[in-house]
Amino acid sequence: MTIATLLVSCPDRTGLVAGMSDFVFRHGGNIIDLDQHSDPDSGTFFMRLVFDTASFRLDRDGIHAAITVMGRSYDLTWELSFNDHRPRVAVFCTKVPHCLYDLLLAQRLGDLAGDIVAIVSNHRELEPVAAHFSVPFVHIEVGSDKAAAEAEQTALLKRERIDLTVLARYMQVLSPEFVRARPGRIINIHHSFLPAFVGAKPYHQAKERGVKLIGATAHYVTEQLDQGPIIEQAVARVSHRDTVDDLIRKGRELERQTLTRAVRLHLERRVLINGNRTVVFA
Amino acid sequence: MTIATLLVSCPDRTGLVAGMSDFVFRHGGNIIDLDQHSDPDSGTFFMRLVFDTASFRLDRDGIHAAITVMGRSYDLTWELSFNDHRPRVAVFCTKVPHCLYDLLLAQRLGDLAGDIVAIVSNHRELEPVAAHFSVPFVHIEVGSDKAAAEAEQTALLKRERIDLTVLARYMQVLSPEFVRARPGRIINIHHSFLPAFVGAKPYHQAKERGVKLIGATAHYVTEQLDQGPIIEQAVARVSHRDTVDDLIRKGRELERQTLTRAVRLHLERRVLINGNRTVVFA
Amino acid sequence: MTIATLLVSCPDRTGLVAGMSDFVFRHGGNIIDLDQHSDPDSGTFFMRLVFDTASFRLDRDGIHAAITVMGRSYDLTWELSFNDHRPRVAVFCTKVPHCLYDLLLAQRLGDLAGDIVAIVSNHRELEPVAAHFSVPFVHIEVGSDKAAAEAEQTALLKRERIDLTVLARYMQVLSPEFVRARPGRIINIHHSFLPAFVGAKPYHQAKERGVKLIGATAHYVTEQLDQGPIIEQAVARVSHRDTVDDLIRKGRELERQTLTRAVRLHLERRVLINGNRTVVFA
Amino acid sequence: MTIATLLVSCPDRTGLVAGMSDFVFRHGGNIIDLDQHSDPDSGTFFMRLVFDTASFRLDRDGIHAAITVMGRSYDLTWELSFNDHRPRVAVFCTKVPHCLYDLLLAQRLGDLAGDIVAIVSNHRELEPVAAHFSVPFVHIEVGSDKAAAEAEQTALLKRERIDLTVLARYMQVLSPEFVRARPGRIINIHHSFLPAFVGAKPYHQAKERGVKLIGATAHYVTEQLDQGPIIEQAVARVSHRDTVDDLIRKGRELERQTLTRAVRLHLERRVLINGNRTVVFA
Repeated sequence: MTIATLLVSCPDRTGLVAGMSDFVFRHGGNIIDLDQHSDPDSGTFFMRLVFDTASFRLDRDGIHAAITVMGRSYDLTWELSFNDHRPRVAVFCTKVPHCLYDLLLAQRLGDLAGDIVAIVSNHRELEPVAAHFSVPFVHIEVGSDKAAAEAEQTALLKRERIDLTVLARYMQVLSPEFVRARPGRIINIHHSFLPAFVGAKPYHQAKERGVKLIGATAHYVTEQLDQGPIIEQAVARVSHRDTVDDLIRKGRELERQTLTRAVRLHLERRVLINGNRTVVFA
Repeated sequence: MTIATLLVSCPDRTGLVAGMSDFVFRHGGNIIDLDQHSDPDSGTFFMRLVFDTASFRLDRDGIHAAITVMGRSYDLTWELSFNDHRPRVAVFCTKVPHCLYDLLLAQRLGDLAGDIVAIVSNHRELEPVAAHFSVPFVHIEVGSDKAAAEAEQTALLKRERIDLTVLARYMQVLSPEFVRARPGRIINIHHSFLPAFVGAKPYHQAKERGVKLIGATAHYVTEQLDQGPIIEQAVARVSHRDTVDDLIRKGRELERQTLTRAVRLHLERRVLINGNRTVVFA
Repeated sequence: MTIATLLVSCPDRTGLVAGMSDFVFRHGGNIIDLDQHSDPDSGTFFMRLVFDTASFRLDRDGIHAAITVMGRSYDLTWELSFNDHRPRVAVFCTKVPHCLYDLLLAQRLGDLAGDIVAIVSNHRELEPVAAHFSVPFVHIEVGSDKAAAEAEQTALLKRERIDLTVLARYMQVLSPEFVRARPGRIINIHHSFLPAFVGAKPYHQAKERGVKLIGATAHYVTEQLDQGPIIEQAVARVSHRDTVDDLIRKGRELERQTLTRAVRLHLERRVLINGNRTVVFA
Repeated sequence: MTIATLLVSCPDRTGLVAGMSDFVFRHGGNIIDLDQHSDPDSGTFFMRLVFDTASFRLDRDGIHAAITVMGRSYDLTWELSFNDHRPRVAVFCTKVPHCLYDLLLAQRLGDLAGDIVAIVSNHRELEPVAAHFSVPFVHIEVGSDKAAAEAEQTALLKRERIDLTVLARYMQVLSPEFVRARPGRIINIHHSFLPAFVGAKPYHQAKERGVKLIGATAHYVTEQLDQGPIIEQAVARVSHRDTVDDLIRKGRELERQTLTRAVRLHLERRVLINGNRTVVFA
């Protein structure tokens, strides 16, 4: 059984659900899941349509062609995927292991609708973790010549046909060019409840400010640091007893959960971008 | 503008979304919200379809007639409502005021898609609360002749054309006949995280057992006490420091939130019953 | 039985707990609760000591005198209170009722270790709420002459011997003089998870930014708007489906809970100020 | 610097805090942390006293002797430990890896005040996990002769001088003798919010009942299955969309967090047992 997932966004108008669900029905498909949202601010309609193509009377090229035609009449932006193509994921990391372990364990437990096929780091500390989970580890040093490092990273992503890049506490800032080339295709974890505590050392900022909750935020990376569309956030309670080290420890739990959830949602194609926000059909 | 909400459940099959969304489109309606769920266990399909009827080419009788026809071919169980009919709610209570205040404040703030039109109590303590919010208060004593009291309550519910009865910490057990006559039309708040601590004095039970979280559960009332379909639950953290009185205080916050949320969800027609469970399109 | 609560802060050194617990024991008191915290950053020691004075061999003047002596040797900042003096609270509000109801209901349920004795508003909308709970309502108009209004408020607070002023969604900015005269004696509720979304219309800001959680923050008021020591915070989950109105509705629940909790903690003398942070012995 | 932690429980009476804090002060110690609790139900006093012994005028034998004397006058049950003795932990597991990974990662990150020195399993699947974290793995088959297997386990625990045994989703029931020999020294994770869903397949039970939250419970093991003192609990929200497999996935996150937290709290000697409940000085 092959499952197709169609993500669409378009100017809102009447007949969209009827038209698209009829398209599936008419060709012999069966809708497994449908979620839709009309954003009144932007006048945009979003839909996630999951359907079984086992008895579909069109092959994949035919489906693409048909949606292309339908897309013109509705002014659709769309993306179609099939569950026998698993998105390929690269994880960038440095030395801190907790987010990497969480992603790899999720993969091992079968929780991800995609495959982590490369772990990229500017350090060697996490190479044994990659080896333990049998995922290729690529060491790309990031020295004074950042452009050279990024060229190497870009080549790797291309060679490995990477669909999604995950920054698992990767401490390097990516260039605007690198980011611009992968819109909605890079997920980062920020160790604060954005937009509070942007920038460096958010747990120190949190301690300084005396907040009673700390947070973590998984978001798509855009050219503006810490400003991209938020996919998922979580918080934990802290008190005056917690030192900065305690915040870091509690925060690690938030970071890995939040990042893994965001990656899981993205790979299940549940996330659409709406300007600088997301629609998450969870 | 009149908004229609159609709730349906039926045996799952292909073409349901297409058929029903086409029905709306074909007659000039506009889908505002659509949520659906297929339960693989029971093979049942559930849908909540909200549509604008401003330009609909059928009047209400026509819509009913058309859905009746469509319903036959799909074997639908359905319920259609329009937002200009606001469901009428009776709140049953005894002496504890917190849930009643929460519901009445929600009503005053415009948070409920229905109207609390009667407050029924076997005591007189809460009469001033009803008066403050300008809702009629009806005192029905529940003495040794419970059947007589229930007959009076039944007459009131009929006279006031009550759609939903809310037990806001109402300490009396209703008869099976009373309950059976109102399937999915009575919501109760139980002061524990069901199925833990069924029965009396759940906070005492919780203290005794030494749990680290307490909860509250809003559920439809069925003939089996504390066993009906759960609509909403919430929990709060407790510690060894908390006495039974502290649990009661913390629990009050959970009870009123949980009950008001469940009532709000029900009145917005977001809740469907699936055997002894609920589907909540939140 | 009279319970004394002693709050102290002082430079950290050895022997503080021994010295102060011995003070209680030596005079025939019985420690009911003791909580302490050493802040390594500021080198400050904080303690909350609750003791039963039923068999105390000093009267109140004697206790004060003895602590004054002890305080000199330890360089104590201290505050002593007895549970038969209930702090007197004034609530400032405008038109939105939810926080006011929550505080007054908490008072009615016996959840507050203090008494709300005045409700002050620049509008008349909430006068019936005050009347319902039998609390005097004082209308003080805030027009172009803000100083005159504040003088009237100040006179009221003095006349009523107010210990704590609570801003229950009071939409007026207080003057630096007013605030400076009441350090740690004014609690405000801000409708965001500070330090995110300071300033006006935080729910609009939250919607704009696309956060997945919204929050509320209760804090002591200082001269810097939205910058005072945080007492309590809470968050709730939101999604792309939530409009600004939904955020406001969900936020109301957070605001009133958070404010009432902060007021309760303050009145139970569980909150000490540590620079721009708080120590909360919950 | 050597830190001592003294856990005590005794019949409540006046002068306990004064007596014990004076003991520390008199001998040149410095109290770092003190937490106490009086349980009115049982009339029992509990205290956790952490003090720096760098300038203590007694050696360890002297401290033990002195507390023994003091213990007699107060009728103390007490336990004294020093931070240079790290408790030794054995983790029992079968095939599911998530709890084991979480504990080992916590160890690697320095979050545990103890050392996992043995991993015991009746299967071989998790041997590579043990190897990756450089912890000895011991395979003890549990076949028809359960007594023989337990004898082997007992010998191992003795040989390795194990202080704490952690059941990380270990699917075997331990004998009453094994449990009785280790009171408060075996921690288990149950995959439900106890006391809801005791026994087998709690996620199936949760799905069947239609709860809106699922939970996990870490508790000390006693002879009554699923009935021991609860150390920590956590919950996560679920909906009608979640299948049993989804509950299992969401539950895994709860299980590992909850178990690791309970183990961390125990190893930091923050947990005291009070009948069938716990006092957790968190």
